[in-house]
Amino acid sequence: MSYIKKPQDIEKRSFEIIEEELGKKINEFLPNQLPIIKRVIHTTADFEYADLVEMSDDAIDSCLDALKKGGKIYCDTNMIVNGLSKVTLSKYGYSAYCLVSDEKVASEAKERGVTRSIVAIEHAAKDPNTNIYLIGNAPTALFRLKELIDSGEVEKPALIVGVPVGFVGAAESKEILPGSRIPYIVVKGRKGGSPVAVSILHGILYQLHKREGF
Amino acid sequence: MSYIKKPQDIEKRSFEIIEEELGKKINEFLPNQLPIIKRVIHTTADFEYADLVEMSDDAIDSCLDALKKGGKIYCDTNMIVNGLSKVTLSKYGYSAYCLVSDEKVASEAKERGVTRSIVAIEHAAKDPNTNIYLIGNAPTALFRLKELIDSGEVEKPALIVGVPVGFVGAAESKEILPGSRIPYIVVKGRKGGSPVAVSILHGILYQLHKREGF
Repeated sequence: MSYIKKPQDIEKRSFEIIEEELGKKINEFLPNQLPIIKRVIHTTADFEYADLVEMSDDAIDSCLDALKKGGKIYCDTNMIVNGLSKVTLSKYGYSAYCLVSDEKVASEAKERGVTRSIVAIEHAAKDPNTNIYLIGNAPTALFRLKELIDSGEVEKPALIVGVPVGFVGAAESKEILPGSRIPYIVVKGRKGGSPVAVSILHGILYQLHKREGF
Repeated sequence: MSYIKKPQDIEKRSFEIIEEELGKKINEFLPNQLPIIKRVIHTTADFEYADLVEMSDDAIDSCLDALKKGGKIYCDTNMIVNGLSKVTLSKYGYSAYCLVSDEKVASEAKERGVTRSIVAIEHAAKDPNTNIYLIGNAPTALFRLKELIDSGEVEKPALIVGVPVGFVGAAESKEILPGSRIPYIVVKGRKGGSPVAVSILHGILYQLHKREGF
């Protein structure tokens, strides 16, 4: 059977198709924003994301600055941790972690009657090395993180990628970041998810890495 | 800030919203298909999936039969392995695995100039315990698996979930299963992905598990 079997060819052709179909819409994005938009569409095959991704003016530069210094990325799902390019991250002194499956977190959440995501992000935010957050699943994690920053208990991070997917609280949780002083990238509305969170960070990371193919 | 913090309430309300918005469309699905459709929409917040998921008549029963016997699930991404409920799977004597990050697979793929997904699925298919496949990323894995089954080198599996996402080969790869003698569940067109593959299997698994909440 005839099908493209070379990985480089597949990725190259994919991004060509995305550019073709984005058409004039490409001009709506700044040069450093476009790789993010294209990566999200590459991951979801959903062009609606071109209208849904919204970011603060300082989001990309703030993240790039942080990536030059090293630190930790808190992810609200293990799928995000798993999807991130750990080889590339480690080159910048970064590691990614998730605490929702932590036993202590689980028992504390049960005791308090709240989501594990809330407890997990409270623990993560206590670590001063955590300065990038990728939230692809739990609106409660995003709400709680914002509370902790607003109250001054937690320092303003370098970037919050807020892309929880879902029907209860997801859209609302993403509305709390625009207008705040926190560098953010969100997907408006219900859509999002772990692969979207991964592709947004990769869209920034690969700019630093000067990797070809997007 | 006021937001729903109890995980059970969030899931329950999410599925209520999905049912409400599906409306009359719910009647298009059989009782054992509906939990799958609802789980995919829950995972993606994308109602288009109600029109895109297609399955063979024997798909769910074939998978349920297999799940009663134990075996292995090959996943074409580590994100799928990571997203699956390993606790529930282990109750049925099942484990999930992925070989794309295997070093031998990587070097063989480089040597042959093909994707790691092709080499990985060839290795997986040689294991007679592998009888469920979850393909959420690589069209080449799906093409190659179908070739191996058609040629008789590999036995017909209990189920192939074919949901590669993307622009090069993804839609085409999913067209080769309908009309075959293989039990399948696919997402037509470009959409799909690792979380979709996970939610489809969970939509079957939880029927067996009689879990509440959908």
